[in-house]
Amino acid sequence: MLVYLNGSYLHQDDAKVHVSDRGFLFGDGVYEVFRVVHGEIFREQAHLERLNESLDAMGLDVEKKIRKSLPGVFRELIERNNLIKNEATIYLQITRGAASPRTHPWPDPAVEPTIFVASEPFSPHLELQKSGIRVITMADLRWARCNIKSVNLLPNTMARQRALEAGVQSAILIRDGVVTESPNANIFGVQKNRLITYPATNYLLEGITRGVVLEIAMRLNVETDFTGIREEDLFDLDEIFFTGTSTDIQPVVEIDEKPVNSGKPGPVTAKIQQTYHEALYENR
Amino acid sequence: MLVYLNGSYLHQDDAKVHVSDRGFLFGDGVYEVFRVVHGEIFREQAHLERLNESLDAMGLDVEKKIRKSLPGVFRELIERNNLIKNEATIYLQITRGAASPRTHPWPDPAVEPTIFVASEPFSPHLELQKSGIRVITMADLRWARCNIKSVNLLPNTMARQRALEAGVQSAILIRDGVVTESPNANIFGVQKNRLITYPATNYLLEGITRGVVLEIAMRLNVETDFTGIREEDLFDLDEIFFTGTSTDIQPVVEIDEKPVNSGKPGPVTAKIQQTYHEALYENR
Repeated sequence: MLVYLNGSYLHQDDAKVHVSDRGFLFGDGVYEVFRVVHGEIFREQAHLERLNESLDAMGLDVEKKIRKSLPGVFRELIERNNLIKNEATIYLQITRGAASPRTHPWPDPAVEPTIFVASEPFSPHLELQKSGIRVITMADLRWARCNIKSVNLLPNTMARQRALEAGVQSAILIRDGVVTESPNANIFGVQKNRLITYPATNYLLEGITRGVVLEIAMRLNVETDFTGIREEDLFDLDEIFFTGTSTDIQPVVEIDEKPVNSGKPGPVTAKIQQTYHEALYENR
Repeated sequence: MLVYLNGSYLHQDDAKVHVSDRGFLFGDGVYEVFRVVHGEIFREQAHLERLNESLDAMGLDVEKKIRKSLPGVFRELIERNNLIKNEATIYLQITRGAASPRTHPWPDPAVEPTIFVASEPFSPHLELQKSGIRVITMADLRWARCNIKSVNLLPNTMARQRALEAGVQSAILIRDGVVTESPNANIFGVQKNRLITYPATNYLLEGITRGVVLEIAMRLNVETDFTGIREEDLFDLDEIFFTGTSTDIQPVVEIDEKPVNSGKPGPVTAKIQQTYHEALYENR
C-alpha cells in the first residue's frame, strides 16, 4: 500500500517520521478514521469539521491550503491503492511537527505540521454486529478533554487490552458513576422507545456514527435522552449498543458476565442497524 | 549530535521511526530524562527503577538484556557526543514498537520495542533558581494514571503553553481542590518547619528530584506532610517551590499575579537548594 506523508506518496514501509516529531515525543497530534464505500467517503464533511475542532482546541494551526488539500489526498490514495471497488478506511493523523530541542510549549516560530494519511481495505465486523459483543465495565481513566480526538490514546489501548485479556471484546468505561464510552466507540442504552447516551461534554468524543444514529432516532421517532446511563441502571436497560466508524453498530449482549436483558440483540438496535446500513451503503 | 535508535548510533537528523510506531499512533511509550554532570548520571538507578515501574504498569515487556544495555548506551552517547566535561541531559524513550495494522490492543505476538536515546548539553536555569518563577493556577486535566511516565503529554504541553501565553513561566495544576504538580515538576509548600506535598498516588508522577528533596528534608530535620496543598491555602504558605530533573529547585514567587508571602524566595527553599546543589555536584 502507498501512504501519504508530508506531500509525498510513499510505500508504507518507507514512511518514517523524525524522532523529534511531537507526535512521537508528546502525542501532540490529532487523527480521524474515515469509512470508504466504493470510493465514496462516508460523512467526510462531518469528520473534517471535527478534525478542525480538535486542531483548534489544541492550538494546532494548519494552513487552510493544507486542510483543503486533504480530500484530494484521500481520493488519490484510494485510487492508487486500488480500493475503489470494495470497502476501505482512511487514517489521517496531523501532528505539531518535528522540533528540537524537546520542550513542552509549542515551537516558536511554528514548524510544518506532520501530515500522514494511510488507506487500507476494510471488512465490516458483520458477525459481531449480528451476534453482539461481550464487555466488562471499568473506570474511565482518560483525561478531561476527551472531546479532542488526540493521539494520547494510552488509556484507550490499555482498556481494550484489559478487556481482551478478560476474554471479552471491549469495555464500558464509567466516570463518576455514569457510562461514558467504550475505549473506541460511543454507547447507547435503549429503554422502551428511548435512546440514552452521554452528553457531548468534554468527557465525550462525539462520534460521527453517534451523530448519524441520533439523526436516525429522530427519523424513527425514537426519543433521545442525554443524561447518560448510570452504572447501577445498566441491567435495567432493554438493549445497549456501541457505535463507531469501524464498529458500525454492535449490540452488547453481556456485561461483566451477566446477560443484558435476554442476552440477545434487541429489536431497536436491529432497526437502527438496518437504517444505518442503508445510509452507509445508499447509492453504492 | 549522535543519538541511539534501536541498536544503532546515528546522526540525529537521520533518526526516524516508522509511522506505525505505537509511540506515534497512540503515545504508547514511556520516557525518562537523566541529568549528567561531568559524565556522571545523577540518581541513575532511581530513574531506571521508575522506568521499570512505568513499563510494568503499561504491560510493556522489554527484554532484560535490552534494559541492562541502557547504562552502556548512555555512557557511549555521552562520550561520543563529547559531553563529559560539562553538564548534559539524557533523554530515553521506549515505545511498544511498530505494528500494523493499527489496533488498540497490544501487538500479538509482541514486536520489538523502539528504544530511542538522545543526549545534549545542558545549562541549569540558574537565574530562575535565584529569582524564582511566576505561575498561574489551572485545572489538572491529566488522566488518572499520572504515576506512569508515559509520552501521553498533551495536557502537560497545553498547560505549559497556556502559562507562557499568560506571560508566566509555568503553572500549578489543581485536582479536586488540591495542588498536584506543575506540567513538568513536583511542587512543595513550606509552612513553618514543614514541607507539604502531594502524596505518591496515581495522580502524581513521583519525581526523582522530589525523592532527593524528601531525603534532604529528613537530614535537615524538616517535617514532611503528604496531605497536599489545598488551593485555598496557597497564600497561607511561607514558601513554595518546584522540583524536577531539569528544573532543579525553583522558588515560586508569584501565583495568579499575587505575591507568595513577601514575593521573594524564602530561606527554607534556599537551604534545600543549597543541599540539593551539593548532592548534584558532589565529587564532580
